[in-house]
Amino acid sequence: MSTKPHRRKSATATGKTTGSQLKFIPLGGVGEIGKNMYAIEYGSDIIVIDSGLMFPDQDLPGIDFIVPDISYLEANREKVLAILLTHGHEDHTGGLPFVLQRLNVPIYGTRLTLGLVGNKLAEDMPMLKTRMEEIKAGDVVEIGPFKARFIAVSHSIPDGVAISIETPLGRVIHTGDFKLDSTPIDGRTTDYGAFAEEGDKGVLLLLSDSTNAERKGFTPSERLIGGTLDHLYRNYRTRRLIISSFASNVHRIQQVVDGAARFNRKISFLGRSMVRNVELAKKLGYLRIDEKMILPVEDIGKAPENQLVVMTTGSQGEPFSGLVMMSRGEHKQIALGERDAVFLLASVIPGNEKLVNNTINRLFSIGCEVVYEADKLTHVSGHASAEELKIVLNLVRPQYFVPIHGEYRHLVRHSQLAQDVGIPNRNIFIMTNGEVLTFQKGMRPHTRNRVQAGAVVIDGNAFGELKSRVMKERRELAEDGIIVVSLAVKEDGALLAPIAVESLGFFAQDEDNDVLDEIRAVAERVLKESSGGRKIDVDAVGKGIKNRVRDVIRRRNASYAVVMPLISVTGGSGNTQNWLEKEFF
Amino acid sequence: MSTKPHRRKSATATGKTTGSQLKFIPLGGVGEIGKNMYAIEYGSDIIVIDSGLMFPDQDLPGIDFIVPDISYLEANREKVLAILLTHGHEDHTGGLPFVLQRLNVPIYGTRLTLGLVGNKLAEDMPMLKTRMEEIKAGDVVEIGPFKARFIAVSHSIPDGVAISIETPLGRVIHTGDFKLDSTPIDGRTTDYGAFAEEGDKGVLLLLSDSTNAERKGFTPSERLIGGTLDHLYRNYRTRRLIISSFASNVHRIQQVVDGAARFNRKISFLGRSMVRNVELAKKLGYLRIDEKMILPVEDIGKAPENQLVVMTTGSQGEPFSGLVMMSRGEHKQIALGERDAVFLLASVIPGNEKLVNNTINRLFSIGCEVVYEADKLTHVSGHASAEELKIVLNLVRPQYFVPIHGEYRHLVRHSQLAQDVGIPNRNIFIMTNGEVLTFQKGMRPHTRNRVQAGAVVIDGNAFGELKSRVMKERRELAEDGIIVVSLAVKEDGALLAPIAVESLGFFAQDEDNDVLDEIRAVAERVLKESSGGRKIDVDAVGKGIKNRVRDVIRRRNASYAVVMPLISVTGGSGNTQNWLEKEFF
Repeated sequence: MSTKPHRRKSATATGKTTGSQLKFIPLGGVGEIGKNMYAIEYGSDIIVIDSGLMFPDQDLPGIDFIVPDISYLEANREKVLAILLTHGHEDHTGGLPFVLQRLNVPIYGTRLTLGLVGNKLAEDMPMLKTRMEEIKAGDVVEIGPFKARFIAVSHSIPDGVAISIETPLGRVIHTGDFKLDSTPIDGRTTDYGAFAEEGDKGVLLLLSDSTNAERKGFTPSERLIGGTLDHLYRNYRTRRLIISSFASNVHRIQQVVDGAARFNRKISFLGRSMVRNVELAKKLGYLRIDEKMILPVEDIGKAPENQLVVMTTGSQGEPFSGLVMMSRGEHKQIALGERDAVFLLASVIPGNEKLVNNTINRLFSIGCEVVYEADKLTHVSGHASAEELKIVLNLVRPQYFVPIHGEYRHLVRHSQLAQDVGIPNRNIFIMTNGEVLTFQKGMRPHTRNRVQAGAVVIDGNAFGELKSRVMKERRELAEDGIIVVSLAVKEDGALLAPIAVESLGFFAQDEDNDVLDEIRAVAERVLKESSGGRKIDVDAVGKGIKNRVRDVIRRRNASYAVVMPLISVTGGSGNTQNWLEKEFF
Repeated sequence: MSTKPHRRKSATATGKTTGSQLKFIPLGGVGEIGKNMYAIEYGSDIIVIDSGLMFPDQDLPGIDFIVPDISYLEANREKVLAILLTHGHEDHTGGLPFVLQRLNVPIYGTRLTLGLVGNKLAEDMPMLKTRMEEIKAGDVVEIGPFKARFIAVSHSIPDGVAISIETPLGRVIHTGDFKLDSTPIDGRTTDYGAFAEEGDKGVLLLLSDSTNAERKGFTPSERLIGGTLDHLYRNYRTRRLIISSFASNVHRIQQVVDGAARFNRKISFLGRSMVRNVELAKKLGYLRIDEKMILPVEDIGKAPENQLVVMTTGSQGEPFSGLVMMSRGEHKQIALGERDAVFLLASVIPGNEKLVNNTINRLFSIGCEVVYEADKLTHVSGHASAEELKIVLNLVRPQYFVPIHGEYRHLVRHSQLAQDVGIPNRNIFIMTNGEVLTFQKGMRPHTRNRVQAGAVVIDGNAFGELKSRVMKERRELAEDGIIVVSLAVKEDGALLAPIAVESLGFFAQDEDNDVLDEIRAVAERVLKESSGGRKIDVDAVGKGIKNRVRDVIRRRNASYAVVMPLISVTGGSGNTQNWLEKEFF
């Protein structure tokens, strides 16, 4: 165990401390699975644990991803000392390109975690200079008033850690994402002993992974997938094998590689993130593979089918992933057919059912044999189930407990487990993002305060607050389409050119092709009624057209299409934006 | 067993038969779960089995539902003798309002099935006069050249039937939706004997439910839910109980009622379809309940909490269902809180995960205890699993087999089961909607022919072909929003009024508010470049603006918003529709 002093001076350490409150502030990750980000604040110093993103579902069309709102950290930028990373998954590190642009603080992580983050930053933010501090399980690092001990945990990606943080008011333990796999592929078990040691020293607050709090018993070992693989290698001896799994699950990739070696098959890696992660894991020593086994992609066609495994992405039916392109017959390097057996070594993440279903159906229809969840044990979770969670609660015996990393239902179930092992209900806090759990000597901790928190959506180069007008507009456009009515008029309301009406995404009865004519006529009538020699009131005409056109399409087509009138007046600005916005807010 | 002659003269029966081919044509229901509709044709006569709808997923925003394309039946309307219904679920009967408007033929169904259909038709199509022929399991009905025997099957709705159809070329059996529940709630087991009898007589073709072909073993009996309910009634003795399930699962409602009686609770029914189905099932004798047990909705507030069960809809998180309104605190008759225990007695239908998750999270956050899939056996399927399917295959021993009612993967798995019990692969047909399986004496059946088939989407009053331009437009609008650029010009290209630019659903960087100005400037430049005194080419200007504005927003915002130029020319038509449509096709 080595202790590294932190080089940056902390406000607290240099005597500027104004209070002695300890605060725990989830900025993302409670009440949701994704965009994990937790701040721990003591006096004038803050450390942040993780900085994740979340992938949007279809409620947010066109959005690339979602990151936590970090206004609070930005407003307190001089306090923020560092970001500590628990492991390399995107829901814990994917927000870094966004966050580091705004807060250039050092990041601490294990070798694989920093390797993955480094790749990502080099690609997304090549100009960004970030100080990366590599730590390993067992290390203790002082950062301002905090002393962080990193503890090995097993998970579905190698090199994960929990973090025990000594603060002047007591010890805070964040479990990271973990399970208690007793037979992990890399032999690196969760360090029960370290949790017990910290527990013996006394723990003020435990923050623990709630993902599988609903699941009874123990999560099976990753090693069980090896059994499934063995069976499949044996059963489909004569076919070419296509195996799809998560590109970050190096343990599972290792088991595929080991099986390939045993059954004398070469292996090819396809799919951008698969190739990149395998490259990195090999380089850093997390994946053991004989280079001679690797078949270059361009030689896939030449290999006898019973001597090849293709390992690829797409287990979630992601639109442009390896497996999906293959199922569509659109993959440039490989064409699948009746000689192929495809294994989906992953479970379907809720929300992806339709995409995965479609992929499986397409694979069957081109003649592949497909093995998936319904057939075999093709996945084990990386998260601890109820019995494991109770073991950790018992090892740590914290005074206070906050379940993290889960939807509300998972947090409730986890809090029930904590009560089962004897933590009193009043010492358990089910928190929401932005809530502040405040500790002060001699007082009961409370959650009376809040800071700004929420979701920021990223769409191309643009980012903005979630639930903005824009998302509402997109949903309305998607539901019913749009009808645009454009008028160019003189100041007295006389038309300068014919009224143009155009629609997109608007569904009319076949016999209703003349509905656009009726709309044009209605718009003209509104214009006549509200001008009549006087100076035209653009707002009134716009609203009038909007209402009357809506009436027409509701009556005729039972449609609720968005109606957008555009009115240009000679000499005017031509912009009707003001009243349109008013309508939408 | 009674035999009813069919009153309508069939073309075949009256000697107009031109050939002796027997055709089986799936018009909906293969390669998908939903919108079941199968035609059986002999000579000049057609009978149709079922007429279902499918609910769209988020790929089809704004679409209310989807029904089969019945062009083939419309083109052969004089041949269509009747529609035979297997049971009352919407995926088998929900298309009737659409179909009967176009083909007014008699429908045959059991008492409950016709009761449900009658309610639906009375509401949707009050003017429609449909001849309804009530049959019961055991009946044999002659319809033209066909002789249909109805066979009792157990399913998740009472009064389901399989249909064995004798045709001049052999017997065709359609299983309907079924399971082999040996202890059904209503005591009406699937009639093994009838299947065996038909098998002994010889069956040319079996069409069998593939929904659960992926599931090993046997589907558990509906009765097991009674055990769960018993446990819950006992465990939550002091709380008010809110139970949500499918409104059509009368068996499950019966078990809730029976439990309420045993535990001395009154019961209230909430949610439109729940109330309506309970009313109908009571009236027709499918639901046994002591009227004194029923608490009127308006008295819910007065009942002691440990003496009441509320039975409601919303087990799939449907937006305006009873349970969802309660979870939002928006239900008019009942407010939930910490005294309530909510049971979701249903499994989540793929695609509804997010809606159900959100509902559960909201229920937890208002303090309810919630019991759902993760906790208990809260659902059993209504469809036969692998072992049951093999039993039916063995009872019937058909010469040919077509798996129906399933996605492609289910059909493949079911065909593998059929091979396991000895049906040769060449006698099994995995079909697509619209494919025609043709039988002719002395020849091998083939699927060389197709008829028009597909999906028709219903949006408000309008209906149209699926995959139309409209759906593509809606998706594009939802992904990236729209920018409308409107110009009114003279024939020589001179602007009559300022260019109007408006956007909806368009996501710009905060600092990019001037992007609309740049778009205006670009549009003006295009106009100038392409006119210059000559007569303006509206198409060219439109395309030019579209391309150049796209470039601007891609460069500035990495956005792919739809760009819609609208150009009105003095004296012109003001309609740019032609080239816009060209662009989209």
